[in-house]
Formats: sequence, structure tokens, C-alpha cells
Amino acid sequence: MRVSQLFTKTSKTVPSDEVAKNAQLLIRAGFIHKEMAGVYAYLPLGLRVLENIKKIVREEMNAIGGQEVMMTTLQPKDIWEKTDRWDDAKVDNWFKTKLTNGTELGVGLTHEEPVVDALSAYINSYKDLPIFTYQIQNKFRNELRAKSGLLRGREFVMKDMYSFARSQEEHDEMYERAAVAYHKVYRRLGLGDFTYRVKADGGIFTERFSDEFQTLSSVGEDTLFHVPDTDEYFNEEVAPAQAPAVTPVPDESLAEFEEVEAAGVIGVAVLAELLGIPFEKTTKTMLYTSDTGETIAAVVRGGYDINEIKLRKIVGARKLVLADEATVKRVTGAEVGYAGILNLAADVRVIVDESCANRTNFEMGANRTNFHATNVNWGRDLPLPEEFYDIKVARKGDVHPESGKTYELHRAVEVGNIFPLESKYTDALGVYYTNEEGKQESIIMGCYGIGVSRLMGVIAEHFSDDKGLVWPENIAPAKVYLVRIGGEVATKHADELYDELMGKGIEVMYDDRDERPGTKFADSELIGIPHRVTVSDRLIEADSYEYTPRMSGVSEVLTHDQLLGKLN
Amino acid sequence: MRVSQLFTKTSKTVPSDEVAKNAQLLIRAGFIHKEMAGVYAYLPLGLRVLENIKKIVREEMNAIGGQEVMMTTLQPKDIWEKTDRWDDAKVDNWFKTKLTNGTELGVGLTHEEPVVDALSAYINSYKDLPIFTYQIQNKFRNELRAKSGLLRGREFVMKDMYSFARSQEEHDEMYERAAVAYHKVYRRLGLGDFTYRVKADGGIFTERFSDEFQTLSSVGEDTLFHVPDTDEYFNEEVAPAQAPAVTPVPDESLAEFEEVEAAGVIGVAVLAELLGIPFEKTTKTMLYTSDTGETIAAVVRGGYDINEIKLRKIVGARKLVLADEATVKRVTGAEVGYAGILNLAADVRVIVDESCANRTNFEMGANRTNFHATNVNWGRDLPLPEEFYDIKVARKGDVHPESGKTYELHRAVEVGNIFPLESKYTDALGVYYTNEEGKQESIIMGCYGIGVSRLMGVIAEHFSDDKGLVWPENIAPAKVYLVRIGGEVATKHADELYDELMGKGIEVMYDDRDERPGTKFADSELIGIPHRVTVSDRLIEADSYEYTPRMSGVSEVLTHDQLLGKLN
Repeated sequence: MRVSQLFTKTSKTVPSDEVAKNAQLLIRAGFIHKEMAGVYAYLPLGLRVLENIKKIVREEMNAIGGQEVMMTTLQPKDIWEKTDRWDDAKVDNWFKTKLTNGTELGVGLTHEEPVVDALSAYINSYKDLPIFTYQIQNKFRNELRAKSGLLRGREFVMKDMYSFARSQEEHDEMYERAAVAYHKVYRRLGLGDFTYRVKADGGIFTERFSDEFQTLSSVGEDTLFHVPDTDEYFNEEVAPAQAPAVTPVPDESLAEFEEVEAAGVIGVAVLAELLGIPFEKTTKTMLYTSDTGETIAAVVRGGYDINEIKLRKIVGARKLVLADEATVKRVTGAEVGYAGILNLAADVRVIVDESCANRTNFEMGANRTNFHATNVNWGRDLPLPEEFYDIKVARKGDVHPESGKTYELHRAVEVGNIFPLESKYTDALGVYYTNEEGKQESIIMGCYGIGVSRLMGVIAEHFSDDKGLVWPENIAPAKVYLVRIGGEVATKHADELYDELMGKGIEVMYDDRDERPGTKFADSELIGIPHRVTVSDRLIEADSYEYTPRMSGVSEVLTHDQLLGKLN
Repeated sequence: MRVSQLFTKTSKTVPSDEVAKNAQLLIRAGFIHKEMAGVYAYLPLGLRVLENIKKIVREEMNAIGGQEVMMTTLQPKDIWEKTDRWDDAKVDNWFKTKLTNGTELGVGLTHEEPVVDALSAYINSYKDLPIFTYQIQNKFRNELRAKSGLLRGREFVMKDMYSFARSQEEHDEMYERAAVAYHKVYRRLGLGDFTYRVKADGGIFTERFSDEFQTLSSVGEDTLFHVPDTDEYFNEEVAPAQAPAVTPVPDESLAEFEEVEAAGVIGVAVLAELLGIPFEKTTKTMLYTSDTGETIAAVVRGGYDINEIKLRKIVGARKLVLADEATVKRVTGAEVGYAGILNLAADVRVIVDESCANRTNFEMGANRTNFHATNVNWGRDLPLPEEFYDIKVARKGDVHPESGKTYELHRAVEVGNIFPLESKYTDALGVYYTNEEGKQESIIMGCYGIGVSRLMGVIAEHFSDDKGLVWPENIAPAKVYLVRIGGEVATKHADELYDELMGKGIEVMYDDRDERPGTKFADSELIGIPHRVTVSDRLIEADSYEYTPRMSGVSEVLTHDQLLGKLN
């Protein structure tokens, strides 16, 4: 590619509303064009990177038997109603549109339902399974905010794969095969050393974890909890957590139970100060109503939040909502804001987090409007719970219960996920297979996503410096940036080198413009091509070339043969 | 690809509402899945064909300097308002959607505006032009009806290219370069011998024709008018037409002008019968109001329709609508249905088609409710028009005026179009360039479409027989269909041949299933792979292979070397 022919140019400015580093760099270097927040067009250099990423993803999915398809963006309502994922109240980020006759259509945000529907024509017997099928396609999500450039798009490129297995064992084998393929993808993209498989929520239909692939990044939206010296990583939402012990007070004796008036005091920090007690002696009690109609009191130590994912699994509910005012009043006898588990209505199920054990003289809502109880003690003021649970959102300083090790925390961005779906979608859409005994059986499904355009953003964000982008060789829009400096002799040699390298299948961006050397060097750095070669009259006189890898920026003067050795 | 691993299977049934042959065949052969009318998913074999077509299109666009990009599907309103193409009243096949905050978005149906907008950042000086840029992308059109399979989709794959030139001359050169590339594409797809460049309407902003590429097809929606023994083809909408002369009546004298009552008689056929005159002596007069407020009476011989495109150009209007009742009454003095040009209001502009010249004793609406005038004669009852025009829709039997030859008519389907846009979009979006004298100039734009998924439908429709599909070799999902018949020996040799051919880069569908030979042969024919090779125990004993090209269906028994000669 001759730079003089490329219609994009580098720029010092970016849209004023663009705050994400990845988008700023990619716009300045001419890789993408911002159409609106979260919606980017790919210009020639950007499209090359995107296609290079797709190629790697495609090869690895094919290698494990993935069959590529292309589902449709326009989606009919009926198949989504069967799985209860049509209603905006259930799935809140659909884009919807309409046929001229008024028929509502969805704009594809994921494709479990249509894939199951399409495959239903081909699955009858056990002989038709297992199947791995995938697509690489634009997806649409009606995100409220989209300020992270390519990291969170309203329109984005995604690889989504689906597996269909005859048994849990077969599913597990396919699932692990996909995980291995994912690691290969990240390794080939240059992200292998800081991308981890992370346990995450498996959703409401399974006890199992799903797995995320998370790349360490200071701009990541996720927090990883790493068990030191192991391969075990948890997403914050599911990290099992043991609170550090409460600082012991030597020879503390049980003080007298009291009710203290503290009208309108919001938050444990203020309350602790008001009561003159350590923060960790406060208690937070939240009341929930489950989808089965049960009222639940969830209790954690001050400073923690309730983890509704953990709580839901413990109480066996599919959905939890905060109890309404009337329920709070009925079960506590008080207005909202003063709940504890003292004198609760008998039908409330109480779940106490382990962070609340081993405390003396602690605080708790008094179940009396405007009052908090202090110097509460298990066994005296309240029966000691038969069991303590883990229902808190893990935080810094928490311990991984199984190993006893204190977690290390990392910011990260999700670059893929794999998800066991059991037979939720296949059953809902009525797709089964007949086993060897002629019996109808459920099909075990998995889904496997990789955010292709997000990866481009992650890589741009990660592999960059103050001069610009630094593309890994596998996905760079070209391998070599050839700078021509000088007159006829340099031009002749640069032209020849361009033809020679292109002839060898080495992609070259040939800066054949009549620009100052400084401009060409700066552009090559902003655009981030891995290898720069400079041909100048002066160098050619000495029969040599200047070679500068983008990563180190350290130039060497090489002979023609030495240069080709570097580039092959 | 081993057929045993492919998740699709052939079928004898298609969706009951699927009437198009291309979709019926492609569904039966497992290439596509119908999501809804006009919306098809591509299954593994179908996606291969689609990608093979894309590859050919891409190579030819790159060869003329096209730079590939990928614009977005989600479209912001503002850029489309600038060109007056947002309003549903102006563009009636938008799909629209909304952000959660209520902001309206379009779902991309074409991309002139966003391409101009994206390029505006990079076009300043004459040095930044010319530019050819293109994308291959899913498009969305809210079609009322979609019953033609891949020939008319609501969601479809399109290649759209855009050219930006500094002058009309530069534009013309690029336009012709694109036309040459288009012919190469169709040739490589196997459609070269029956795909023609056809003159079509250039739209309201230019006097120029656009050009369509039309492939002859009995299911085509278009009618081509071909000037025999030339390369000249016109789309029906613009074909210049001279009506065949009215059958002369020997020694016909001028009869007496009469007004005949014929209340409620609709249509010239009934009228001609009622009046006892030949069909061609009737006259149709239509009244129009133009966007400039002018009232126009358009007159054609009975049996012809008014061609509003031709009429619009003659009267210099951008838009014509049928005159409303009040206007008809005012200018004719009669109810709708009895209009002629006798005693018309003086402000009506009369445009008479040449088919009305050279007639004696003809009929015409009397401009009197319930009455038709007969035995009307130019020069006696009406002044002879100063000029006769061509404002009719051409039809069978018409003559190409310039050559005097009678047109040959063909049904065809549009597989591409190229369109001169002059500076309509660039001017509207305020994108100009500065010329060598520092003066701001308009940018001349062209757009160039190829319906990629439509081409797949056209090819499926054209290259098929009663046994199924017959893919041209360049785009077939595989080159060879390898049928294994028999036991261990055949399996060993078939496996070896499969590995050998795949090793040579020859794509093979290896039918390694335990099915009857008849089933395998029928599948190979329905799927339409160009070359079939059969390996059986019996043949292997004789050290030979059966080779059957799909096109001829004639089998030969070949040695290994002969076979490889055929396949290389």
C-alpha cells in the first residue's frame, strides 16, 4: 500500500467528546471514524486490523470443528418469546424496529434462539450431534452509555459460537476444548501473558460458573480476584470471600443492650461515628422478596454489600427484589431504614454472612423507627445462627476461603466468555434428539463469545505509548513501514525494496509522499507498524538501510541481506 | 470437509410459503435458512459461496484502486436530514430504531451520506483526490413484499463503492473504470455471457443515464429493450420509443366531429369497442401537477402508459403528481375520467406523444362529463402541436428512434448498478476541495452497487437443473464431491485421495457417510459441486476412479493420473 494513495491521514485532533484512549489513538491514526457514541466505522487501516483478528479467531474455531454460519440481524419476535427474552422488561438492551405492516422485529443482539431454531431442521438423532457452529458478525446493543471507544459498543463485531452436546460429559469436553482454543486466540493476538480464565456467574439456570477471559487493563470495568500463586481467578460478582477478622478488643466483656435514637442516619460510616464504635461493628440488613414469595433478611457486616448472585443461589431463588415498604413495615414493625433481625416476623428467612460471626457488642437496626440497637451479642440478644453464609460482595483484603490466601485484585476487561446453558434454550424451543434407545433427550448447549472489535480496542489501549499505537505483528495493518527520504536514487531503491517485499508476501506501507522525514517518522509511530525501514540517498550510497522496530525504537543500519533476515 | 461432520443435510421439503426457485433449491440443499420473508441466514455451504463471491468482488474493486472500509449499520439522523433522505415520506424503505433516550436512528439501507461525512475529515486539497472507497456489508430495506428469495431481501449483502473526483472528466474515467471492473466480476462469476450494461434512469438531479448491469433471467423483474445487433440496452423506464405507425385506412376522409355519451367507461379497450374504432385511435390524457406548480396534460395513444421519468425531464420538473380532482375540474370543466386537450384552460401545458401524430378521426376525452369526442382531427378540431415528444413507456413492437430498429425485449434481473451523483451529496454535506488556484470546488461523486447475496440467488436460479444446483467452479462451496462406496479398501483409497487433493489446495466435500450410493449421488447433484469422483471397491480393483462433471452428468472411468489432470 502506498501511503500517497491511502485516503486517510493522521491527525492531532479527535472528537471533543471522545474520552477513551483506544478511540482517541485509533481516530488520530485514521483507523476508525466515530459515527456516534459507541458506533464506529472502520477505515482501510482499521478494517485490516479487524480482519486480521477475525482470521485468527476463525482459524482457531475451525481447528476445534467449528462450522461457520451467518445468522441474520433482523429477528422475528416469536422465537424470542418462547424463551422469554423478547420483552424489553426482560432484556433491556434490544434495538427494535418494524416492518411497514407494523410487525415488530428485533435487531440482533445475540443469537442463541435463531441458532437453535435454524439447527432444529437438522437435529433428530444422536447421530446428528455433537455440533459446534459459530459466526463473526455485527451485534447491536442499546447501551445507555457508550464512552469507552471500541471497548463498549452499541454496534460491535462479535464471534459467537454455540455447542450442542448429547450429554453433560460431552458438553464438558467441548467446553474445555473451546477454552483451549480461546487461550490460543489470545496468545496469537499478543495478549496471552495477561489474559486469564476467570470464574463468573453462570446465570440463574445453573449452579455452574461461567468462564470469562479477562485481559488486565487499567481501564477495565471488571475487578478480578486472584488467588495468589494459583491459576484461580474470580470475577468480583462470584468471588467466594471470607472477611478479615474483626480487630479484637482485649478482654472485651458483653455490654448492656441498648436502643439508640438516630433518626435519618444513612450509611454505616456516619452511624459508626455517631455511636462511637468501629466501623466493622455495624451491621447492614437488607430485606428481599424472592420469586417464590419468600421474604429474606440478608445480613452483612458494615462496609460490605450484599451479593445478590450468591444470596439467590443460597435461597434457591431465580429472582430477588428489594422488599417493598409495606413488607418491611409488616416484618420489622418499623419504617424502612431501621431493619435488623431482632424480633422479626417468624416467616422471614434470615441469612447471615460469615463476616457477622465472631463479633461482640455489635450494632444492628432495632426494627423500631429511628432506632438502632447497640451492644448486640449473639446468644444473648439473638440466637446464634445455625449456619453463617457467604453472601457479600468480595472486596480488597478478603480471603479466598478454600486456600486461606488473601486475594490479589486486578482491573481487567472482558475479552471473551464461555457459558454453560444446559438445556434452557433447546428445551424452550422444543429441540430434542433421539438417543440410541429411541428415547427423546435434552440437548446440552454452550455458548462462546469473543468481542472482536473490543479486542481491537483492548490491543490499541494496551500496546501503545506516547508516540502512538504499537500493533503486534500478527494483526498489524502492515508488517513494514517503508520511509523514502531524498531524490531519485532513494526513490529507485525504495521502489525496488517495496516490490521485493510485497513480492515475498510481506505487507508494506510505503511512505512515498513528498513530506518531511520527521512527518513520515511520526506517522509511522502513530500508526504503529512493527518494522520501519528507511531508504535515503545517504544510506543507499553506503549500500545500507536503517531499520527501526516500533517496539524498542532503537535503529540499526543494516545491509540488504541483514534487513531481509529481520523481516522474514 | 467431511460430509459426516457437516451439520446441514439435504431435504425434499421447503417452507410452504417459499415460492422462489433460488430459495427453494438453496434451502433444500442446506445452504440457507429462512428467518422470515426476505431474511435468510447463511449455513456453512451457503456462507462459502457468499464468501467466494465477495472475494471476487473485492479483488476487482481493489484492482481499480478501491480502498475497503466498513461503515456502520446504525445511522444518525442529522446527516440524512441534510440531503432530505431521512423522512419516511421521502425514503419509504428505512428501518428505524431508537436509543433508550428516544433518539431516532436509521438502520443502514445505503451509505452515501456517512461515506461523505467520514471522508470529509480527509478531503481538503486537490491532492487528496481522487478516491475510490467501498465496503461489502449487510444492508436493510423495509420492502413491502419479499417473495423472491435472495433476489429481493429485507436484509442482504451488498458491495457499495463510492468515487470522488475533481472534475467531470475525472469522474467519467473512474466511472468507466468501474464498469470494466463490473464486467470482470460477472465474467468470473460465470454470468459474463448474459449480463449486459443497460441504460437506466439517472434520477432527478442529472440529465445523465445511470447504468445497470442486468442478467437475463425469466424471473427478472426488469424488461430490457435491446437494439438488435448492437451493445445498446435500455431499461424499460428510459427506453426511447417510437410507436409503430397506425394501420392506415385507405382513402380515409375526415369524418364529422362528434361527442358520444359513454358514462363510466373505463379503459381504452372497452371504449374502442363501444365506439367501434380501432384501439390505436383512442387517446389517453393524464393531468399532472409539477413541483413548480404547473399543470401538465400528457397525451399518449391508447395502449401506452405515460412514462413519468421522460415527462419529468421534458417539462423540467423534479416531481410530478397526478392532478387533484379540483384541478381536473377547473382545467377541463368536467369530472375526472373525461379529460382531453379540447378547450383546456389556457394555463395547462400540453405535451403530446409522437404516437398521437399521423392519426385521422381519432378519439379523445371531450372535457365534458360522461362524453368522449370522436373523429377528432389535428388542424381541424385541434391545432397541430408544434412538437411531438416521447413520453410513453416503451413496449413490445416499439422502434429505437435513432437506429430505426425494432427492439428485442428480454426479462432480466439487476445484479449491479453504477450511478453518477454529480455533486448532490458532497454539496449538501458541505464537502468541497481546494483546487490548484486555491479556489473551492465541488466534488463529483459516483456510486457503484453490486448485490452480493442477490448474485448468489441469480446464480442458483440460473445454474440449476431438475436435479439441483450447478455451481460455477469459481464460487462452488467445494471443487470436488468425493463419493465413497464400499468397504475397507474403498475407504482407504478415498481417505488417501481426500488427503491428496486437500493437500494440493483442492477443496473436497468427502461423502464419508454410511449411506446408499444413490443417496450420495443425489446429494452431490442437489448441492451442485462441479466435479464428482467415485471411489468403490470394484473400481479400485481396476485401479480406477469414476469421474462425473455436474454440468454434463456424463461419467468417465479414469486412472489416478487422468483424474488429477481433470481436477488441476
